[in-house]
Amino acid sequence: MPQLRIAAAQVNTRVGDLAGNADLIVEWTRKAAEQGAHLVVFPEMALTGYPVEDLAFRESFTAASKRTLTELATRVADAGCGAVAVYVGYLDADDVGPRNAAAVLYEGEVVATQFKHHLPNYGVFDERRYYKPGQTLDIVRLHGVEIGMVICEDLWQDGGPITALGQAGVDLVVSPNASPYERNKDDQRLPLVARRAAEAGAPLVYVNLIGGQDELVFDGDSMAVSIDGALLTRAPQFVEHLMMMDMSLPGGASREAGQFGEFAVRRVRLSDEPVPEYQPLPMPPAAEPLPEEAEVWFALVTGLRDYVHKNGFRSVTFGMSGGIDSAVVAALAADALGGSSVYGVSMPSAYSSEHSKDDAADLARRIGAHYSVQPIGEMVEVFVEQLGLTGLAEENVQARCRGVTLMGLSNQHGHLVLATGNKTELAVGYSTIYGDAVGGFAPIKDVPKTLVWQLARWRNAEAEKLGDVPPIPENSITKPPSAELRPGQLDADSLPDYELLDDILDDYVEGDKGYSDLLAQGFAAEVVDKVLRMVDLAEYKRRQYPPGTKISVKGFGRDRRLPITNGWREGH
Amino acid sequence: MPQLRIAAAQVNTRVGDLAGNADLIVEWTRKAAEQGAHLVVFPEMALTGYPVEDLAFRESFTAASKRTLTELATRVADAGCGAVAVYVGYLDADDVGPRNAAAVLYEGEVVATQFKHHLPNYGVFDERRYYKPGQTLDIVRLHGVEIGMVICEDLWQDGGPITALGQAGVDLVVSPNASPYERNKDDQRLPLVARRAAEAGAPLVYVNLIGGQDELVFDGDSMAVSIDGALLTRAPQFVEHLMMMDMSLPGGASREAGQFGEFAVRRVRLSDEPVPEYQPLPMPPAAEPLPEEAEVWFALVTGLRDYVHKNGFRSVTFGMSGGIDSAVVAALAADALGGSSVYGVSMPSAYSSEHSKDDAADLARRIGAHYSVQPIGEMVEVFVEQLGLTGLAEENVQARCRGVTLMGLSNQHGHLVLATGNKTELAVGYSTIYGDAVGGFAPIKDVPKTLVWQLARWRNAEAEKLGDVPPIPENSITKPPSAELRPGQLDADSLPDYELLDDILDDYVEGDKGYSDLLAQGFAAEVVDKVLRMVDLAEYKRRQYPPGTKISVKGFGRDRRLPITNGWREGH
Repeated sequence: MPQLRIAAAQVNTRVGDLAGNADLIVEWTRKAAEQGAHLVVFPEMALTGYPVEDLAFRESFTAASKRTLTELATRVADAGCGAVAVYVGYLDADDVGPRNAAAVLYEGEVVATQFKHHLPNYGVFDERRYYKPGQTLDIVRLHGVEIGMVICEDLWQDGGPITALGQAGVDLVVSPNASPYERNKDDQRLPLVARRAAEAGAPLVYVNLIGGQDELVFDGDSMAVSIDGALLTRAPQFVEHLMMMDMSLPGGASREAGQFGEFAVRRVRLSDEPVPEYQPLPMPPAAEPLPEEAEVWFALVTGLRDYVHKNGFRSVTFGMSGGIDSAVVAALAADALGGSSVYGVSMPSAYSSEHSKDDAADLARRIGAHYSVQPIGEMVEVFVEQLGLTGLAEENVQARCRGVTLMGLSNQHGHLVLATGNKTELAVGYSTIYGDAVGGFAPIKDVPKTLVWQLARWRNAEAEKLGDVPPIPENSITKPPSAELRPGQLDADSLPDYELLDDILDDYVEGDKGYSDLLAQGFAAEVVDKVLRMVDLAEYKRRQYPPGTKISVKGFGRDRRLPITNGWREGH
Repeated sequence: MPQLRIAAAQVNTRVGDLAGNADLIVEWTRKAAEQGAHLVVFPEMALTGYPVEDLAFRESFTAASKRTLTELATRVADAGCGAVAVYVGYLDADDVGPRNAAAVLYEGEVVATQFKHHLPNYGVFDERRYYKPGQTLDIVRLHGVEIGMVICEDLWQDGGPITALGQAGVDLVVSPNASPYERNKDDQRLPLVARRAAEAGAPLVYVNLIGGQDELVFDGDSMAVSIDGALLTRAPQFVEHLMMMDMSLPGGASREAGQFGEFAVRRVRLSDEPVPEYQPLPMPPAAEPLPEEAEVWFALVTGLRDYVHKNGFRSVTFGMSGGIDSAVVAALAADALGGSSVYGVSMPSAYSSEHSKDDAADLARRIGAHYSVQPIGEMVEVFVEQLGLTGLAEENVQARCRGVTLMGLSNQHGHLVLATGNKTELAVGYSTIYGDAVGGFAPIKDVPKTLVWQLARWRNAEAEKLGDVPPIPENSITKPPSAELRPGQLDADSLPDYELLDDILDDYVEGDKGYSDLLAQGFAAEVVDKVLRMVDLAEYKRRQYPPGTKISVKGFGRDRRLPITNGWREGH
C-alpha cells in the first residue's frame, strides 16, 4: 500500500496578520519537510486567523488574503518545500460572497480550493452572517493516494460532505478546524471523528487551532483516527505542536468525479507514483486530555497571554486586594507572562483590613511580582465631601478612585490593566462599573466564584508537588470574602452562600432554566427571586465589562445576547 | 365588491414586557373597533417586542409568549372586540425550534398562525441564530375576503411567500414589520411594497413598529398600496398612530389550498358574508416623509426617550462643557424628556475657558435645565501628585474625575448619565475611556461631528420659525472645538479638519473602502494613514462605549463586529 508521512501543524495564528501568519506557515512547513512530511495540514483559516468577523466584508482584506495565498505557494516552493502538499485555510471571496476556504499548495501553485459548506450560526459562531456555503469537494491525488478534505463544521453534518466523500471514494480525509475550548464539554470530538472516518471509509486527520483570540481560546487537541475509528494519536492541548504520522493507505486508481448528492466532486491529480517504500516511524503516543482544573487553568493562561501579547502589551497591572480573585488573577498572570511583567497595586482605604495588605504583599513576593501601595483615602475624601456622597454612592466612589488610579498608572507606564472580577459577581452585578470593572481584559470573568477557589487550591497543590512555593497565600483562600467598602462588610451580607448561588446561576444562565424550573429543583423561592432579579438587572454592567477568556457554553460575552431594555423578569 | 375597514396599529412595544404589550394590543384593538375596524394589524412580534435576542432560547419565555397570546384572544373578545380579526406578532416555539410568528385572533380564539420564512442574518439582524423558518401560509377568509400575510423580511424575498400568495390567490395582503430606521436609506420601502402588491395581485398593508429599543429605533412609516402599486396612504414617522383604511376588495369564492412552490397554503374560513354596504371614509392623507435633519432629530429623540423610560429612569445628567456635543445632547434630552428632567453639570478644570462656563450656563437657561458647577481641580491634583502623572496620563485623569463625579451624582440622585461623544471621535478614539465615555446611554454616538453642527443649526432654526428661544448658544456652534485638557488645546491639533475626517470615515467605515480605494479617491496618503491607524486602534474603546441610537448602516454597535486583537492594518 502507498505510504504517506502526514504532518498536522497545530499552530497559534493572529487574526488579520496575514504577513505573520504566512511566515508561520512557511516556517512550520519547513519543519514538516525537514522531518520528511509529504503533506502538512494547518487549521481552519490559518492564513487570516479565526474568526475574522466583519473583516470578511472588507474587499481590501479578502483581496489581500487571496494575494497572500498565491505568494505563499511561491514562498513555500522557494523554501524548497514545493513537493509538500500544504493544506491551508484562508478567506476567499467571489461573485457570490465571502467564503471560508481552504486551499492546497503544491510545487509553487494553488492546486485546489474548497469552500466550507455547513456554516455554524449559534453560540459564538456567526458564519451565516459572513460566508456563502460551498458545494464542491476537491479530492487531491498525491503519490497515488486520494485525499479528501472537510472544513470544521462540515464534519458535524449528517449526510454532508463526509457522506459525499465516502460515496466518491477517498483514501484519507484531512480536516482543518477552529474549534474553541469549552469547559465540561465531554469529549465530543473523538467519537465524532471516529464515526466520520467510518462513513468516509478512510482514516481522518483532525487539525485544530491553539491560542487565544479575544474572548475565545482554542485548545488544539488535534488527532488522527483509523478507518475503523481507533484513535491513532492525539496532540497535547494549548501548545503549538507538529504531529507527524506515517500511514499506509489503499491508493489504487483514481476514482469517479462528478455529482454526489448536492456536492460536485472534482479530482485533482498531483502525482500517481507512490513514494519509495520506507520504514515508518512509530505513531507518536496519544497525549492524554488534561484533568479538569489543569485544562481550565491552561485555557485561562493561554487566553490571557495571547490577549496581552497579540495586543502589543508586555506587562499588566491590577488591584491586589489580598482577596481570592486578585490572587488567582495574579497567579495566572505570573504563569502567562512571568512575575516580572506583573505590577500589583495595593490601594487600601479606611475600611481595608491589615490582613488585606499583608496578604497582598505576601502574594507579590510568592510570584515575584512588582508591588506598590497607593492609599485612596485622600482621593475619596475630596469626592465624598465635595459631592456630598453617602451610602452606595460612597462605596462606589472608592472602587472608582481605584479604577482611576490603575488607569493613571497604565497611561503613565504602559501596562495593560486587568479587571479581577469573577463570573458570579458579574452575573449578579456585584461590582462597580468604572470601578473594579475597569480594565482591558478580565482573566476570570467566565470563572464562577466556587471554581476560583478550586483553581487556587489546585494551583497551590501543583506547586507543592513540584516543590515550588505555592503562589497563593493560604489566608486569601480561607478568609470570608469581602469588598471592604464599609466597616465589617462581607459578601455574605448581600449575596447567598456562593455554593448555592453558583448552583442557581449555572441552571439559570448556562441551563436557560426558568423560575418555576428552579423552584421545582428545590431552590427556595426567596433566594431564586433575589438571584434572578439581580441577574436580570445586571445586563448593562455585563455589556460594559472588559473581554475575558470564555470557558463555558454561555458566558456573558458575545455568546449570550440579551436586550438591555428588557421588560421580561423571570417569576417576579 | 366586499368592503373592509382595516386598521394599521403603528405602536411602541417594549421587549420582554408581555403584560404591558398585551395591554397595549387590547387598548389599540378597542380603539380600532370603536372606529369600526374589521381587522387590525400590529407590527412584527408586537406581543414580545423586537428584537428579543437570546430570550428566544428561554423556554419559560416562549411558553409565556404562547400563553399570553391565548389569553389575549380571550381578553380581546371580553373587551367586546371579538368580531375584529387581530393580526399580532409573537414568539412561538415547537419541536423544530423558536419561531418568529404572527397569529390571527378572532372571536376569542387563535384562528391562524404563520411563521416567518425568510430570516435576515445581516447588519443588525441575527434571525438565523434564533429562528427556524416556516413554510406554511394561512390565508384567512373574513367577510368573504381572502387575506394573506407576510412577515417583514418575507416581503423582500423574490419568489418567496408573496409569489406563493399570488399563485394561490388573495384579495388583500397584510404585513407586520419591525424595520429599523436608517439615515440616508433612500425610500426603499414604498417601491418594494408597490412591486409586491402587483406580484400578489392584491393591495398590501405594511405596518411597522415605532420606538427605541436599545440601539435600534423604529420609525413607523406604515403604508398601504393598491394592487397597481399606487400609494393609498402613509402614517407619520416616530409616533404611535392608528391608520384607518376603507377598501373594496374583489372577494368571491374561496380558492385553492395546497402546495405552492415550497409553501403549504392553508385556507382559514372565518366568515363568508360581506359586511353590509357602507359609505367608506376617505383614505387619510399620506404623511410626507420628514426632511433629513428632522428625521435624524426625531430618531435621536425617540431613541433617547425610550431608552430612559423603558429602563425606568426619569432624569438624566451629563457634563455641560459649553461645547457643541454636550449642547446638542442637552437639546435632545430637553426635547425627549423636558428641560426639568435634565441636570447639566459644569466641571471646570484649570484649563477650562471662561466662555465654556458661560456657554454652559446659557444653554441650561435656554432649555430650562437644572445646572450646577463642580470644579474638578482639587480631585485632579490629588491623583496627579500622588501618582506622578504627566502628559496624556494627566489629560486623561481630568476626564476621569469628571466621570467619577457624574457617576457619584447619578448614584446619589438616581439620574441616568449620558455620554456626550459623537461618532467621529468614537471612530478615531479621541475620547477617554472611563472619562468622557462614562454613561448609560450615548445619544449622539452614531452622529458624525459635521452632522452634529448641522443638527444644531437646524434645531435652532426650527425654534426661530416658531418664535421660540433657540436651544443652543450660537457661540457653542461657532467656536473651534477643544477638549480643554491642556492650555490652548484644540481638536485641530490632533485631528484633520472635521469635514475631511468625516468624508474619510464615511468611506472607510460605512463604505468598507480600503487604503488604496481612499488614495484613488484623492485623499492625501498622510491623512489617510493617520486616520486609518486611529480607527483601527480604537476598536477596544468602541466596545466599551455606552449604547446609543443607531442611525447609520454601520455604526459601532453590534452591527459592526471586529476583532480587538487584530493584526490587519489598512495600508500601513
